[in-house]
Amino acid sequence: MTLDSLDRAACAAMDAADPLAPLRDRFDIPTGMIYLDGNSLGAMPKGAAARAHDVVTREWGADLIKSWNSAGWFDLPVRLGDKLAPLIGAGDGEVIVCDSTSQNLFKVLSAAVALRPHRKVLILEGSNFPTNNYIAQGVAAATGGRVEVRLCEKDEIADAIDEDTIAVAITHVHYKTGHIHDMAAITARAQAAGALAIWDLCHSAGAMPVDLGGAGVDFAVGCTYKYLNGGPGSPAFLFAAKRHQGHALQPVTGWWGHAAPFAFEPGYRPQRDIRQFLIGTQPILSMALVEVGLDIHRAADMTAIRAKSMALTDLFIRLVEERCAGHGFTLASPREAAARGSQVSFAHPDGYPIMRALIAAGVIGDFRAPDTVRFGFTPLYVGYVDVWDAVDRLVTIMDEGIWKRPEHQIRDAVT
Amino acid sequence: MTLDSLDRAACAAMDAADPLAPLRDRFDIPTGMIYLDGNSLGAMPKGAAARAHDVVTREWGADLIKSWNSAGWFDLPVRLGDKLAPLIGAGDGEVIVCDSTSQNLFKVLSAAVALRPHRKVLILEGSNFPTNNYIAQGVAAATGGRVEVRLCEKDEIADAIDEDTIAVAITHVHYKTGHIHDMAAITARAQAAGALAIWDLCHSAGAMPVDLGGAGVDFAVGCTYKYLNGGPGSPAFLFAAKRHQGHALQPVTGWWGHAAPFAFEPGYRPQRDIRQFLIGTQPILSMALVEVGLDIHRAADMTAIRAKSMALTDLFIRLVEERCAGHGFTLASPREAAARGSQVSFAHPDGYPIMRALIAAGVIGDFRAPDTVRFGFTPLYVGYVDVWDAVDRLVTIMDEGIWKRPEHQIRDAVT
Repeated sequence: MTLDSLDRAACAAMDAADPLAPLRDRFDIPTGMIYLDGNSLGAMPKGAAARAHDVVTREWGADLIKSWNSAGWFDLPVRLGDKLAPLIGAGDGEVIVCDSTSQNLFKVLSAAVALRPHRKVLILEGSNFPTNNYIAQGVAAATGGRVEVRLCEKDEIADAIDEDTIAVAITHVHYKTGHIHDMAAITARAQAAGALAIWDLCHSAGAMPVDLGGAGVDFAVGCTYKYLNGGPGSPAFLFAAKRHQGHALQPVTGWWGHAAPFAFEPGYRPQRDIRQFLIGTQPILSMALVEVGLDIHRAADMTAIRAKSMALTDLFIRLVEERCAGHGFTLASPREAAARGSQVSFAHPDGYPIMRALIAAGVIGDFRAPDTVRFGFTPLYVGYVDVWDAVDRLVTIMDEGIWKRPEHQIRDAVT
Repeated sequence: MTLDSLDRAACAAMDAADPLAPLRDRFDIPTGMIYLDGNSLGAMPKGAAARAHDVVTREWGADLIKSWNSAGWFDLPVRLGDKLAPLIGAGDGEVIVCDSTSQNLFKVLSAAVALRPHRKVLILEGSNFPTNNYIAQGVAAATGGRVEVRLCEKDEIADAIDEDTIAVAITHVHYKTGHIHDMAAITARAQAAGALAIWDLCHSAGAMPVDLGGAGVDFAVGCTYKYLNGGPGSPAFLFAAKRHQGHALQPVTGWWGHAAPFAFEPGYRPQRDIRQFLIGTQPILSMALVEVGLDIHRAADMTAIRAKSMALTDLFIRLVEERCAGHGFTLASPREAAARGSQVSFAHPDGYPIMRALIAAGVIGDFRAPDTVRFGFTPLYVGYVDVWDAVDRLVTIMDEGIWKRPEHQIRDAVT
């Protein structure tokens, strides 16, 4: 299609032909809003409010402590993990939902250090979302100098792996650019050197097929509040390959990770399965809503999700580059769809006021310092007309200089 | 009063004179149920369902990522901590609400180990709720043998403290017996020896006056889902005395504990205040409900709560001992109210089927192996007639041998 033939009607036709389009009705998106920030916080499934009401009034209010058994509260981490597992190529009993991504990374990095006692280097990507690197620094510091963290840029990672490497711990899809790392290749390279491969799936779980099992990954972590639509700060997940369970131990040895949590034994004795990565009591209400998001995913085909994700992001890049030509946007994401997650970033020296003006116009993306405007495209609820309309509003903002208005210069937002 | 004069009408008169009685209407207790298990999971405040609905539909559903700022999600840990602080004798900026009790204990024990690098012993109570001891074992193991855990029984703690002691980490009110430790005396004894005093307030926060500041306590942790009524698995709290902030560092160095979390600096640089004890993104929905429970407490006087708690538990002990005399119950809690938390335990060789029969009769307490029936009395919603009626049902169960029925012998409950 040329730009002439690619108009809003053409986008509407694409929506009409979209096999995932019916799933949009499972979400409540505010009227008039084009939500392109599902890579930060996923939208609310329509079932969330009813589920929250049921957990609060029936499970908690009426059934009280009985619900630990009758409502399955104790089993939620494992049950939700098993439900999430097919989305990331994991098997039953290999995934658990609990705690935050940072905490789960602490557990698996600590486990990796213990599994490779004669090695000393953790490799991470320097430009990664910083908490991963901070957590690795904390794990290294706790060894009193035995372990060090080496931060590499993306093209240096493979060559940095050697016989001193404990593990590579890489975020599969880069939070800022959307670049996809080659999970299979880096995992194979790490394991060939005797190192472990740890993947952070925050920006890929639910947005594209992930095959932890096929790649032979050792450990993984990720969040449930982005593409999995679990709600603000919903508990994260942790994957440990079966072969490590019972051998890989983590240091935060709370009673939920004990082999017999209700035997009240004096000494800690780890579960020999995925539950060893649990620590303490989970926030049940936040936990329960994870299931509402996962159930929508189970109604969707991941191949269709990925195909639509690539089409949406291709369309957005094309429309911005064509219709905003001359306005100073530079693509900051991989141009090739196969190398790109479900997000698109553009660099622009005035990115901050431009994003403020977009948000005021009902197009919700976000800004990442110093100059990146970032847009996420969740195939479950973003359509082709949304992309058209978002760019349309951007064209108006740029053509009419709306972003130069004083109210868009205020620097107060932190997300 | 003699037993003859102490009848249900006398209990009703006590309820009528109870200054806390109006607060019961702030809770939804199922009709016909006498809930004596608020020391395991607090009852549901009536405001909880509306608050959950608002967080889900408005803050998440309508305002989406804007709520990190506009709804104050980022500030919740500190704001809730400041709201909780007066209940435990802490000052502004000394308490934070986040994560689980086990995780928070890991942080403060790790901080204590780092603050006392030339000492080697962590002292805990052996008969404590086991997760505390497990966590301490994990912290010790992570030092590679430098640190060891010494488990004492309650009368041995003071004498065990010496110049090798890093910290004593004691649960203020024992989960099973309700015995109250002398916080001021043990803290003073520990500090006189150069050790740190860490207190677990799971069974005291909200149930009685606690004066961390007056006792000069170093660190404390506790949960919000028992007497504070925050909901199942609601996030826990952590107290660090101001003098330790900026010096005491914990090893799980996630971005929420960074001095500038949104500067995305390559290296971890700790916050120099209570926020250094944060790790990652919090479960906002579970977190938000903590405030509903705290707001009820702010309408109550802690001296009145404690006075009623002692009266309720005294009454329960007296009625059980008098009306169930000869049925084999032995008091397993301190007889003196001043030495007892807001709970009463009795030992009975058939405690398990007796508790099952009680639960079937609508009196919810719990059982702790091998032989303890445990009853919690939350002064905010338990009244004197509740105590009378609970014992009345127990009398029937014992006099008529109802607990011997086959359905009460089944061992399936875990709480």
